[in-house]
Amino acid sequence: MSCFDPLKFRQQFPLLQKTVNEKPLIYFDNGATTQKPQCVLDAYQDYYSSSNANVHRASHVLSARATRAFEEARQVVKSFINAASSKEIIWTKGTTEGINLIAASWGESQLKAGDEIVLSYSEHHANIVPWQLVAEKTGAVIKILPLCDNGTLDDSELTGIITAKTKVVACAHISNVIGRINPLEKIISRAKAVGAITVVDGAQAIAHLPLDVQTLDCDFYLFSAHKMFGPTGVGVLYGRLALLEQMPPYQGGGEMIQTVSFAGTRFNELPFKFEAGTPNIAGIIAFAEAVRFLKQYQRQAFRDYEQALITYMMAKLEKIHGIRFIVAEAPDIPVFSFTLDGHHNHDIATALDSRGIAIRSGHHCAMPLMEFLKLSGCLRLSLAPYNTFAEIDAVIEVLTSLVRGEGAVDGYKSEPVGALTEEKAEAGADQSSAMLARFAALKGWDSRHREIMLLGKTLGRMAKAERNEQTLIAGCESLAWLNYHRDDAGKYHFQADSDAKVIRGLLVIVLAAFNHKTALEIAGFDIQAYFEQLGLLQHLSPSRGNGVQAIVAKIKQLASRN
Amino acid sequence: MSCFDPLKFRQQFPLLQKTVNEKPLIYFDNGATTQKPQCVLDAYQDYYSSSNANVHRASHVLSARATRAFEEARQVVKSFINAASSKEIIWTKGTTEGINLIAASWGESQLKAGDEIVLSYSEHHANIVPWQLVAEKTGAVIKILPLCDNGTLDDSELTGIITAKTKVVACAHISNVIGRINPLEKIISRAKAVGAITVVDGAQAIAHLPLDVQTLDCDFYLFSAHKMFGPTGVGVLYGRLALLEQMPPYQGGGEMIQTVSFAGTRFNELPFKFEAGTPNIAGIIAFAEAVRFLKQYQRQAFRDYEQALITYMMAKLEKIHGIRFIVAEAPDIPVFSFTLDGHHNHDIATALDSRGIAIRSGHHCAMPLMEFLKLSGCLRLSLAPYNTFAEIDAVIEVLTSLVRGEGAVDGYKSEPVGALTEEKAEAGADQSSAMLARFAALKGWDSRHREIMLLGKTLGRMAKAERNEQTLIAGCESLAWLNYHRDDAGKYHFQADSDAKVIRGLLVIVLAAFNHKTALEIAGFDIQAYFEQLGLLQHLSPSRGNGVQAIVAKIKQLASRN
Repeated sequence: MSCFDPLKFRQQFPLLQKTVNEKPLIYFDNGATTQKPQCVLDAYQDYYSSSNANVHRASHVLSARATRAFEEARQVVKSFINAASSKEIIWTKGTTEGINLIAASWGESQLKAGDEIVLSYSEHHANIVPWQLVAEKTGAVIKILPLCDNGTLDDSELTGIITAKTKVVACAHISNVIGRINPLEKIISRAKAVGAITVVDGAQAIAHLPLDVQTLDCDFYLFSAHKMFGPTGVGVLYGRLALLEQMPPYQGGGEMIQTVSFAGTRFNELPFKFEAGTPNIAGIIAFAEAVRFLKQYQRQAFRDYEQALITYMMAKLEKIHGIRFIVAEAPDIPVFSFTLDGHHNHDIATALDSRGIAIRSGHHCAMPLMEFLKLSGCLRLSLAPYNTFAEIDAVIEVLTSLVRGEGAVDGYKSEPVGALTEEKAEAGADQSSAMLARFAALKGWDSRHREIMLLGKTLGRMAKAERNEQTLIAGCESLAWLNYHRDDAGKYHFQADSDAKVIRGLLVIVLAAFNHKTALEIAGFDIQAYFEQLGLLQHLSPSRGNGVQAIVAKIKQLASRN
Repeated sequence: MSCFDPLKFRQQFPLLQKTVNEKPLIYFDNGATTQKPQCVLDAYQDYYSSSNANVHRASHVLSARATRAFEEARQVVKSFINAASSKEIIWTKGTTEGINLIAASWGESQLKAGDEIVLSYSEHHANIVPWQLVAEKTGAVIKILPLCDNGTLDDSELTGIITAKTKVVACAHISNVIGRINPLEKIISRAKAVGAITVVDGAQAIAHLPLDVQTLDCDFYLFSAHKMFGPTGVGVLYGRLALLEQMPPYQGGGEMIQTVSFAGTRFNELPFKFEAGTPNIAGIIAFAEAVRFLKQYQRQAFRDYEQALITYMMAKLEKIHGIRFIVAEAPDIPVFSFTLDGHHNHDIATALDSRGIAIRSGHHCAMPLMEFLKLSGCLRLSLAPYNTFAEIDAVIEVLTSLVRGEGAVDGYKSEPVGALTEEKAEAGADQSSAMLARFAALKGWDSRHREIMLLGKTLGRMAKAERNEQTLIAGCESLAWLNYHRDDAGKYHFQADSDAKVIRGLLVIVLAAFNHKTALEIAGFDIQAYFEQLGLLQHLSPSRGNGVQAIVAKIKQLASRN
């Protein structure tokens, strides 16, 4: 292994020095976004403290300084990916916008009814939905490349699917769930053979692989700063000059014009033609610092260290009872996706969270992949070079104990839950106060999480027939159902259930506030203040992942419409 | 005047404590972008140091924290503009993107050939070009509201121009050049009467006026964070719920979907339907801090102080010999646009810059307004509540001395330029070395600027007939012309000219490097290093405003194609 010191690397990231839930943070959600080194935060602060002005617009020194730093950032990125010209580097707000730009500008001007767009089953929604939108507008048709058992695109199918009708082939360099490098050379070569353009979603690859767009020979390559130690709100669209020159502008406004008149407008040259409006100047300058930061390190040393993490992690994960990896073989970058037999993904993720371990569960913005793999979702652990073998050990230990049933609930001695469940029979008694009293003594998310899991055990299951489309609550990563009847006195009696234990526990807490109440009482109850008092509000964000707020909204809505 | 302490306010902005060009910075370019208070920079840094994660995506505590702060930011903006629902607040990257979103989503789905879009002559390019693009796609027609003498939209023309054919009326709350409040109530009322939607570009108004979108009763209102003490890369699209609900999505990707499948995709509810991809999370959270910062102050106190600045400034400006305001009457916000008889805007702007005063000259992304006013451009001084009466005094003093001819050149005792001009005759002599020697002794931009102005006096004028379309250099805020011939020995002999004195000086410097040289010599000369050695590089950014780099590019291109 080449010389790379992960601990020194790690020290540069302020958030990684923090505790969460009173535990040292173990951040294994790098596929969603990476943490940021201090030098990137300093670059942002320095820009605003010394050079802030709008770019390309004025002749005063601040504007000249800002413009120079802004255009230097473009040069930094050009050299980082070895583009032939800085005119091929277009700033976007992220990978998603980049793909939308291509689909709208190139796609709407070039595609005709019957033309084919080739995607794969493993694409992120960002590389599906823009193509669906342009297909709907133009009558183009989407074709899908299947996957091999190990999760890469099946290149034996290329000639059958990429044909003379194909005008675009758009695929990820590395899928955000599978973590394997796709056979881009073969795909690009086949696309060229039929005269199709190639669009590569590099959002996941860019932080892990060295990139040379000229060697790769793709037409477009997209990535986001925030997944490579840079800030949110900045992305790069690399496009081959000849194609960019043919394309009509995407957004109109200042900067992308040469002259504007009501008689007719002339557009600016590249790259400005595609950069309407004041750009994210500070973000882009901070991003250049992130690239410089990355360039200090040998990419091969990163890769070697990541390879060692992968080998170590795979050996440990394989020993966990009931683990099912979503595809065969070890990944090429440290992204591990699996399910655990008999455990809901959401329960595992929240149990890990209560130990300070950040991972992700769900569909990972790749629903068609989940459908292809016949999964409703999976767990994903995604690592960066600041992660360590010791962190892997810690995560494996918790996972192992959870699978053995030594996890959150069973090893924890709490008050018996009898008192509360008896109260539940007394319709109208103020169960929310009892709940508040119950949680008042609990310190930290870890013990509150255990309490929630215990409460979940007290919730009676809804009959299978009642867990149906009518009672299902939309917006949950886990499934939840809510049924109710309103009695003659106008009181609402709710029944709720979920496939995730942690959600069942939260449903007990929610029902303690709302069950057996009138519409007026339900409307008058400040549930957010209640969550706050319980110490749960910061865990109940308006997130897709956690459907509890959706259930609250549903209860409020049911009670308000009668 | 209500109680507002501009000096205390000012102290919170780190850049305003700095010097530029060895002078205390006087920043009068707030219409382009404002400076940022420390609390906004701290909010950004704090977010990345304590909560950074992707939003709406995971159930771990960092993601919940980030999501909560992100959605709280939406509430902060909702309450700031008194929107009826937080679903009406859509995050964009800026005003320009917001207008493009409306033009593409609402416009492309609703407009038909012959439908009319009403704009005004005073719109920023951001509120013209998106409509031109959608008009081209749909066959809709653009109509233009004229202006009164004082620069506001002429409401006597409303009924003639906004008719049953009108489907959209889009105009600025305040023009970025004129600084007067448009009669929006009348315009919106007329638009409603004919069933047209109303789109208000609030980019300039938001930092100066309190806003209540429900009282204003517009359908859409757009603004940018960076013009109201927040970061770049963040904007707000306010839209009326009923309209947003009807509109198809703009960009596709993660977050804006409910479910994705190759069989068909269901879009998410508002506001997420319009927020594809990872948003600018840190920027948005820092922006919320900027709004909280603004809300600490009484808006009326701001307005009163700004009104006092306006009165003071107008009284002083009116006394300047040869000043021509672009419209009649004092502005409603402290934005002052004018020209000075006998002085090129660019010369004035660079002379002010050499004294540490940042203003803007040019077309201000409002070319149709310049055309309407029969101007090629103007000077614009735009103030914020951190500006002071003392700063106004300082600027007026410099402007007055420039107009009196006591300015940059004439009051300055320099070496005679004879030596250099004589050298110019000797074709082939290394004049760039002489130029470097000449600048070596000069300290600071102020003295270099004076030297450039002196050099400008030595440049012979090109014959009027030779200053034509063929010799004109595109990309200059000021006009510049370049002519050449190539002699039998393969040497290039250039002649150059400009209407701005400062550009003429820079042309002397450029020609010292390139004139009377062969193609090989021209190609081999590192002009950027030369600019750097001269201490000019930071003033020669690749900016539209300063066309010197365009001239360099032209010379290199001419020499390379033979």
